[in-house]
Amino acid sequence: MRGTVLYGPRDIRFEERDAPKIMKPTDAVIRIAATCVCGSDLWPYRGINRVTDPTPMGHEYCGIVEEVGKAVKSIKPGQFVIGSFFASDNTCPHCHYGYQSSCQHKEFVGGAQAPFLRVPLADGTLVATPDIPSEDLIPSLLATSDVLGTGWFAANAANVRPGTTVAVVGDGAVGLLGVLSAKQMGAERIIAMSRHPSRQKLAGEFGATDIVTERGDSGVGRIMELTKGIGADAVLECVGTQQSMMQAIRSTRPGGGVGYVGVPHGVELNGEELFYEHVHLHGGPAPVRRYLPELIDLVWKRKINPGKVFDLTLPLDHVAEGYRAMDERRAIKTLLRP
Amino acid sequence: MRGTVLYGPRDIRFEERDAPKIMKPTDAVIRIAATCVCGSDLWPYRGINRVTDPTPMGHEYCGIVEEVGKAVKSIKPGQFVIGSFFASDNTCPHCHYGYQSSCQHKEFVGGAQAPFLRVPLADGTLVATPDIPSEDLIPSLLATSDVLGTGWFAANAANVRPGTTVAVVGDGAVGLLGVLSAKQMGAERIIAMSRHPSRQKLAGEFGATDIVTERGDSGVGRIMELTKGIGADAVLECVGTQQSMMQAIRSTRPGGGVGYVGVPHGVELNGEELFYEHVHLHGGPAPVRRYLPELIDLVWKRKINPGKVFDLTLPLDHVAEGYRAMDERRAIKTLLRP
Repeated sequence: MRGTVLYGPRDIRFEERDAPKIMKPTDAVIRIAATCVCGSDLWPYRGINRVTDPTPMGHEYCGIVEEVGKAVKSIKPGQFVIGSFFASDNTCPHCHYGYQSSCQHKEFVGGAQAPFLRVPLADGTLVATPDIPSEDLIPSLLATSDVLGTGWFAANAANVRPGTTVAVVGDGAVGLLGVLSAKQMGAERIIAMSRHPSRQKLAGEFGATDIVTERGDSGVGRIMELTKGIGADAVLECVGTQQSMMQAIRSTRPGGGVGYVGVPHGVELNGEELFYEHVHLHGGPAPVRRYLPELIDLVWKRKINPGKVFDLTLPLDHVAEGYRAMDERRAIKTLLRP
Repeated sequence: MRGTVLYGPRDIRFEERDAPKIMKPTDAVIRIAATCVCGSDLWPYRGINRVTDPTPMGHEYCGIVEEVGKAVKSIKPGQFVIGSFFASDNTCPHCHYGYQSSCQHKEFVGGAQAPFLRVPLADGTLVATPDIPSEDLIPSLLATSDVLGTGWFAANAANVRPGTTVAVVGDGAVGLLGVLSAKQMGAERIIAMSRHPSRQKLAGEFGATDIVTERGDSGVGRIMELTKGIGADAVLECVGTQQSMMQAIRSTRPGGGVGYVGVPHGVELNGEELFYEHVHLHGGPAPVRRYLPELIDLVWKRKINPGKVFDLTLPLDHVAEGYRAMDERRAIKTLLRP
C-alpha cells in the first residue's frame, strides 16, 4: 500500500510502505474510511519538532475492522470503529481514573494517513458505532477521534459548567471544537479569540457569543473589559506557545480554570506569577477514549456537527497539498479519503 | 506600644511604635490575645526576600475588638474575632467565588506581632467566635487565622476526598495541618514526607498513616512504591521550592491533584513536563476567610486541635528568640502572648 511519510521540514511523501499486519494478539487492523491532518502534525512539518527518521504520519482515524488478533474479544471484523491517538488497555488504574492517554500500557498510534492502520490494544482502544454510518456522518465521526475529544477535554479540564463565561485561545480546529464543547456543556457566554473571518464565522456557528481579535496583553485586556474586570470562569488554551498560555492564565478569574491542550513548545511558567493568578490549571494529552462513547452518540443522533471543521477534503494521495493548505492557513483542517 | 519590626536579615527588634488607630470607617482595632511567627516570615528573616525598610511583622492574629470605624456594622467592640492575612470585603465577585485572598479590595494585614492591630474591611475580614473562648482554645483559634486555613486550602485545592491517598510535601506547620485537613476530609491514607522525629510524631497524631523520609527523586520513588506505581491521588505542596514543587507534581497520579501553598521562590515549571504529568494544579494565597466559619466551629466543638503545632510559647517581647528557634528548626511554630 502507499502511505504518508514525513522526511523532513515540508517534505511529505505518499509512498509505498508495508501494509500493516497483526503483530500482537491484542491488535486490530482497520481499513481507513477517513483520516486527516492534525494541527500537531504541523510542528514536525514545520521543523519545530525535529524529524530524525522518515516518519509515517497521521493519528486520527475511523474505518472498518479488517482483521483482529486472537486475544481480541469485543471488537469484530466488519464493525465501523473509532479510536484515539493513544492506544490504551482501558483496564489499568489510570484508565479507570479516566486518563486513558496516560494508560500504563499506552502506545502511540501512528501512520493513519494510509489506507490501512494497525491499532494496538484493540478492545481497550476502539469504540464501534451502532451500525455502519451513512457517508455524511463520517467527517463528524472522524472528528471525535482527536480534535473534538481534545476540545472537549479542554472544556472539561477548564471546568466549563452551565452558565459560565468561557474564553477560547486559539482558532484552530481544536479551539473551534472547544467552542462547540463549551456550548454543549452549557456555557452562557463563549468568547472566541480569532482574527480570521472564516474561523470567526465557524466559531459563531458552534456557539461563540463574542469575538476578540486582540492577542497577548491586549487580548487579556479585552477579556477583562468584556467580563467587567473579573476574568473568564474558564479558559481553553488550544495553541501551546508561551504567549497563548500566559494569555489564557491572565484571562482567567481567581479560582477559575485553565484547560490546556496545545502541546507546549518552549513554555515556562513562573511559579510566583501562577501562585498569585490563583487559577486551576489542568491539561495534557486528551483522554479521548473516556469521551468517545458520549461523543459518538452525540454525532450519531445528529446533535452536533463537529465535521464542519473540515473545510478541505482531498483524496489521500494529495496529502502533501493537505499539509500545505493548513501550514499556509488556507484550510482549517484537511480531511483525507483513501 | 511596643511591636515587632524586621530591619534586615536576622535583625528582629521589639520596639516602640505608634499604636494603631481607626484610619478608615471600615477599620477595626483589636487587642491581640495571641499571635505567632509564620513560616513565610522566615523568607525575609533569612534575607531570601529583601527587606528595604523596617517592616512591622506578623499577620496571624486573634483577639478582642477594641474599637470599630463608623461604617462597621456586624463586628462589635468586645467580640473575640479571628481574621486572615488578607483583609477582604467579602462582597466583591472574587470573594463571592470563594477567593477572598484575591478580593478586588484586598489589603495585606501586617504588624500583628504587637499588642494591638488595625484590621481593614472589618466586616468582611473578621469572624467572631460564639463567645469569649476559654484559654485552652486560643492556640487552636489562632491557628485558623492562617496556618490551618492554608493547610486546609492545600487539601481542598488538591481535591482530597473520602477514601483518597494523599501525600504531603513539607513538614512545617502548614504541612502538618495539611495532614490534619486531609484526615478531616476523609483521606484513607496520608503519607507525610518528613525526616524530623518530632514532626513525624505530630504528623501521626494528626492522621498520617505513613512517613517517607526521602526527598527529591528518591521521595517520588517511595511514593510510587507505596502506591503500587500509580502515584498519590492528591499531593499537598507546602514548601515553595523548585525541588518540593517537582516532587509534588511527580508524586501525583495522572488526573490527580496538586494543591500548592508554599510561596514559590525561584520555581519555574516546564510546560511540556507539566503537560505529560497530567495533573491538576491549583494553589496560591489561601482564601482563609472562606473556611473560617467552618474551622472555628470545628475548634469550638473541640473536634480538631490544630494548636498542637505550637511547640514553643513565648511572651511577645521575646519575639526575636521565637524567630531564631524556628529558623534553626528547634521549634515548629512559635506562639506569642502579649
